[in-house]
Amino acid sequence: MTDKILHDAALDYHAHPTPGKISIQITKPADTSHDLTLAYSPGVAEPVREIAKNPEDAYKYTIKGNLVAVISNGTAILGLGNLGPLASKPVMEGKALLFKRFANVDAIDIEVKHKDIDDFVNTVANIADTFGGINLEDIKAPECFEIESKLKKLCSIPVFHDDQHGTAIVTTAGMLNALQLQGKKVEDCRVVCLGAGAAGIACSTFLLECGVKPENFFMIDRHGVIRSDRTDLNEQKKKFINDTGPKTLAEAMDGADAFLGVSGPNLVTKEEILSMAPKAVILACSNPDPEVSPALVQEVRPDIIFGTGRSDYPNQINNVICFPFLFRGALDVRATEINLEMKKAAMNAIRLLAQEPVPEEVAHACGEDHFEFGPHYIMPKPVDHRLYSWVSKAVAEAAVKSGVARAPLPDHYLENE
Amino acid sequence: MTDKILHDAALDYHAHPTPGKISIQITKPADTSHDLTLAYSPGVAEPVREIAKNPEDAYKYTIKGNLVAVISNGTAILGLGNLGPLASKPVMEGKALLFKRFANVDAIDIEVKHKDIDDFVNTVANIADTFGGINLEDIKAPECFEIESKLKKLCSIPVFHDDQHGTAIVTTAGMLNALQLQGKKVEDCRVVCLGAGAAGIACSTFLLECGVKPENFFMIDRHGVIRSDRTDLNEQKKKFINDTGPKTLAEAMDGADAFLGVSGPNLVTKEEILSMAPKAVILACSNPDPEVSPALVQEVRPDIIFGTGRSDYPNQINNVICFPFLFRGALDVRATEINLEMKKAAMNAIRLLAQEPVPEEVAHACGEDHFEFGPHYIMPKPVDHRLYSWVSKAVAEAAVKSGVARAPLPDHYLENE
Repeated sequence: MTDKILHDAALDYHAHPTPGKISIQITKPADTSHDLTLAYSPGVAEPVREIAKNPEDAYKYTIKGNLVAVISNGTAILGLGNLGPLASKPVMEGKALLFKRFANVDAIDIEVKHKDIDDFVNTVANIADTFGGINLEDIKAPECFEIESKLKKLCSIPVFHDDQHGTAIVTTAGMLNALQLQGKKVEDCRVVCLGAGAAGIACSTFLLECGVKPENFFMIDRHGVIRSDRTDLNEQKKKFINDTGPKTLAEAMDGADAFLGVSGPNLVTKEEILSMAPKAVILACSNPDPEVSPALVQEVRPDIIFGTGRSDYPNQINNVICFPFLFRGALDVRATEINLEMKKAAMNAIRLLAQEPVPEEVAHACGEDHFEFGPHYIMPKPVDHRLYSWVSKAVAEAAVKSGVARAPLPDHYLENE
Repeated sequence: MTDKILHDAALDYHAHPTPGKISIQITKPADTSHDLTLAYSPGVAEPVREIAKNPEDAYKYTIKGNLVAVISNGTAILGLGNLGPLASKPVMEGKALLFKRFANVDAIDIEVKHKDIDDFVNTVANIADTFGGINLEDIKAPECFEIESKLKKLCSIPVFHDDQHGTAIVTTAGMLNALQLQGKKVEDCRVVCLGAGAAGIACSTFLLECGVKPENFFMIDRHGVIRSDRTDLNEQKKKFINDTGPKTLAEAMDGADAFLGVSGPNLVTKEEILSMAPKAVILACSNPDPEVSPALVQEVRPDIIFGTGRSDYPNQINNVICFPFLFRGALDVRATEINLEMKKAAMNAIRLLAQEPVPEEVAHACGEDHFEFGPHYIMPKPVDHRLYSWVSKAVAEAAVKSGVARAPLPDHYLENE
């Protein structure tokens, strides 16, 4: 699609036949006056009284337990920057659409204008009881770290900044699978992360939690490798100080086994690619233009396993294979938070599902004959219906095991065994 | 239905097959990867850019223009009192259901916890741009007056406290029709309002705006008639001071042409009913038990036209004949507020629709053979599909005429002519 065709098609899609992409649907009979007697006055007083007695009954009599708020202040919309809350609405509605489409989670967007971080946090905390979970989205770094951390303390429901943790889960699953395919052990690998924003910090944190050794890990921002001789580091970046030698991207890339890009387009040179270790891995997530041109890598280093955010190359890195199913699992056991165990469970489920034989219908839905775990297929496809049971179930089980579930594992997870 | 049967049926209705009464629905194709390219990345960047350039385009590319937030803090839930925000959720979801069912308005409930009035106002104002309108609900007096007034100043979309103004519009329409049927002129009538809470203040204000003379109007709270020798009056009540004589309910009722009850059950005596003027009107709105027993009025004063909040007597006073259609009209012309002209237009449309011949199917849907404007039919029935065009159109026209519309009258209103 050319830019002009995409522009027109996207605007037409959003405008017609009705504006936007979601609506509210009635799920109960509402035709007769008897129906309305139950739905509203006087019948509605009954669930009100039950919830007043036992707040947990809100999960029994209202949509709360299946309702996620997709919340943004519009300060970091896609790759477009700070365009304000209202302009973020199509993205947040889109996220709500993906929640429903992939995991039958009811999600509604809320755009928040605010004076400062505490005003944003207070606003979201004040309305949080309405929902079963909160997905923060497109909030710029470093404010997003403080916002998420404060909200997690104030809310008894999962608060999850998908740009951070969803990206971390998906890229780590892809990275571990690609390294395995290349015959490398994660704990021996030299890994470079270019980008130290919301996604960069979260991906780096999670990679270390999943086996990468701190001494082998190089975080790089626009001023080079994060080292202790830097005087411009915020608290988040300081966690990744590595003084083992390299100061520049080029120095860090020399002999690196893996590169993760969560920064901007075309920042890696041909020489840097050539300098990587044999059988390396590159995940270049900058959208729509990756840090490294796929064509260039294919030409000069065909031994490298390569992934991007693009749908027109293999190994698309796409958060949609995680967040709907992660929330599905968390909601299904009324988890009070999404903790490290649950994130690791999601990552592992995604990773292992990619190693399973792929049903024909999944390949066909992607316009392919078949997929097989290998250099061109390191992660499940969004249309893979098994994500629902694999990822959601793994997350729900991890929530129960780690003691943050307020409800037992639902029967349908057990039936799948 | 007995209390026990209603209790069980209402809880079952709310719990099964899924908790709650509403859900999110996808309104655009979302099956193929082409669909998702338009709905989310990269296509969604197009409407984002358009809205960033021109905020009004949010109405074109998102659900904003059809989305109403039903917002409560749970401080005055139905007749149950202050049970907190979470317990109000079934009522607010019920309101969302009625919005959708009657006027195809998408509505979502938001329950707000807060420290004080300003915290509530700030929270709602911060999220207001998400929506095309705000319906405040079940917020106790006198806080509700300050909350609504502050939010109206902060928001560029309609903010409407239905317990106040919806009730005022519907009761006034019924009152004016009933007085007309009794052959009385509103400007000559002595009117008594029992109750000085949110509904009482709003109904009284609106009755005076619709023709009742201040010297003929008596507002009564638990301490008697609002008079200048009272030392316990708040600013809202002071607007209704009447020093023409009566000090008690009994004294005010003596010779009164109309009684409006928005207070509590069984507060009016047989003697007080007997003392009213010939061919009087009683609208006793306390729910579920009215201020006056319908059976008693029928027995001792069959000349009186009588309405209550109950569905098992004629002339049920029910806000659902107003708020869905009022918001429908306001949204259809992107009104910046709901002003007096729009409220009067809604009231008049409701009043005049009741005087029209009633289609057979409307009567049948209510289990009756026919309805005819008269003592037992002073207001349209909620199932009357003509409310959609009559009330919404009248409101939209009034918005355009009074200069608060940001969009012209939609074609479908013109086609109805």
